[in-house]
Amino acid sequence: MQPVTLKRLAQELSLSIGTVSRALNDSYDISPATKERVRALAKELNYDPNPYAGSLRHHKSRTIGVIVPEVANPFFALVINGVEEVARQNNYHVLIYLTHEDCQREAELVRLLAGGRVDGILLSVASTCAQFEHLRVLAERHIPLVLFDRVREDIPGPQVTTDDFNSSYRATRHLLDHGCRVIAHQTISEQLTIGQRRKQGYLAALCDFGIEPEAGLVVTAQPTKEQDVTLLEALLRQRPDIDGIFASTERLALSSYAACNNLGRRIGTDAKIIGFSNLDAAPFLNPALTTITQPAYDMGREAAAILFQAVTRNRPLSEAQSVELKSELLVRASTVPPTPA
Amino acid sequence: MQPVTLKRLAQELSLSIGTVSRALNDSYDISPATKERVRALAKELNYDPNPYAGSLRHHKSRTIGVIVPEVANPFFALVINGVEEVARQNNYHVLIYLTHEDCQREAELVRLLAGGRVDGILLSVASTCAQFEHLRVLAERHIPLVLFDRVREDIPGPQVTTDDFNSSYRATRHLLDHGCRVIAHQTISEQLTIGQRRKQGYLAALCDFGIEPEAGLVVTAQPTKEQDVTLLEALLRQRPDIDGIFASTERLALSSYAACNNLGRRIGTDAKIIGFSNLDAAPFLNPALTTITQPAYDMGREAAAILFQAVTRNRPLSEAQSVELKSELLVRASTVPPTPA
Repeated sequence: MQPVTLKRLAQELSLSIGTVSRALNDSYDISPATKERVRALAKELNYDPNPYAGSLRHHKSRTIGVIVPEVANPFFALVINGVEEVARQNNYHVLIYLTHEDCQREAELVRLLAGGRVDGILLSVASTCAQFEHLRVLAERHIPLVLFDRVREDIPGPQVTTDDFNSSYRATRHLLDHGCRVIAHQTISEQLTIGQRRKQGYLAALCDFGIEPEAGLVVTAQPTKEQDVTLLEALLRQRPDIDGIFASTERLALSSYAACNNLGRRIGTDAKIIGFSNLDAAPFLNPALTTITQPAYDMGREAAAILFQAVTRNRPLSEAQSVELKSELLVRASTVPPTPA
Repeated sequence: MQPVTLKRLAQELSLSIGTVSRALNDSYDISPATKERVRALAKELNYDPNPYAGSLRHHKSRTIGVIVPEVANPFFALVINGVEEVARQNNYHVLIYLTHEDCQREAELVRLLAGGRVDGILLSVASTCAQFEHLRVLAERHIPLVLFDRVREDIPGPQVTTDDFNSSYRATRHLLDHGCRVIAHQTISEQLTIGQRRKQGYLAALCDFGIEPEAGLVVTAQPTKEQDVTLLEALLRQRPDIDGIFASTERLALSSYAACNNLGRRIGTDAKIIGFSNLDAAPFLNPALTTITQPAYDMGREAAAILFQAVTRNRPLSEAQSVELKSELLVRASTVPPTPA
């Protein structure tokens, strides 16, 4: 018996081979009625697509790439776990690439992956990237791209983020409500959208509380942890009136613990600290760290789900698919110390 | 002008093309004198190996794979950074794969990579693997394998480890020297060599101190953090005389903090805690955690350096290349609390 081919299905249905193929691949440009007709006949005739031939024909690698600045950060580790869950459901492999916050490295990786090594990319951009010409090649080669967390508004396509402005507003307001009046802000980068939004949330909360923002109270993340600590120590020495610190990343929050400890500032009383963090150890810090905790695992799932609509079902991606998830404020002793007995 | 080919070099030197090629690739089976002759002529004639042709000929992917149980653990994140440094020096890419401690997943990944996707593999085995038949395919296909940290003695080839027995002996001895007499041990896995060596170090220290070990004081890591906490809480309730806890991983150390906090046991006084950990936050925990800290970055560098001898220079790998690095004992308040003023 002859195997049932796409050609035979097309002949029996009076459709083109391309239409039958796209219908079987659930492509967005085929009507539901046509898909139904094609599927019914394929089932009736026991059509068996050769998955290997399919892989060759569509140049599918059955692999997606995740490009992140680092993995030492539990946020990215959790995102990757969420991505892997969705990839497994789709029988795809996940390749993880690290930029170490180096824009040139990010550009090299994108160029490498654009060569057909992956069918789609999830990207959280390096904080040192001032422009994004290097991403253009992905659109040219029709490789779907979904950004998450570290996004830029000038990059087109869907973005999965958290409510950075609102949660930063809440974080700063929380410090103000607990008596802080001179609040330093450690920002991740003035270039990244999340850096901008988190700073804007901080500024808006100060403004609503009638406090004039001071540019000198904002410090930017440095290349190394040691430099972060040194920079913050210098600021704390210069401004002994600082009574609150809002850290926009976990690493910055830990550097503020180090700086306060080194200078003998009591965390929670002399200076209250709040930071974005997914650190398992946050409740066990001295004092326990009040955090804005992002739904990192869900972000990975959402970003992967959007990407797979393009990768496996040929749906075009657009900004309209962007998703914003909510972060959680977890109050602990670094902002609300236990009342002495 | 004709381009200078391997064939021409071979003719002029009266050598086979294969010998010239292996000499240029610095293969171990070519004598230093021959290598020198070949290199000298290649330089004189401006021989330019086409790197792309080279890649096709040798089926080189210019990629190595790193398979680790998880990335949320700072130990593995640091190892990966060390591997990437060496890979960059060799102009290689690094692919990161996660097993999530699932042996079946590890077997699937190995099978996938054995298909030619990578030129060599660095592996830290999943704790649930009881046997290692799935690694045999790598030897059959001549894909070099170097194990690190999570090794098994029954897997042949080079292994990069730390002094697990000695550092565990020191850790336990440290607890004994600071007054502990009933010491619980949280082990990562009885199947992994590191689990066995760490437990042996613990038992040897007890023995040398004249303390009879009790099987009931040893608990094994569970699938989830919550289960680890529950298990340890049960043990602490059953044995209120436990005055020391030696955790063989960072996650287990944090679970012991949670269990002690939940039961109102004061860490550092009621129960002293020491754990293997590369956690940046260790000095900021309440109380600061005494750690055995592995040289994770150096382990990644060493393991990659051994692998690249096989990948780029065709040197065969053997157990003789195994390396053992030293861990560091960092004493903090969880075992030596500050004396009250």
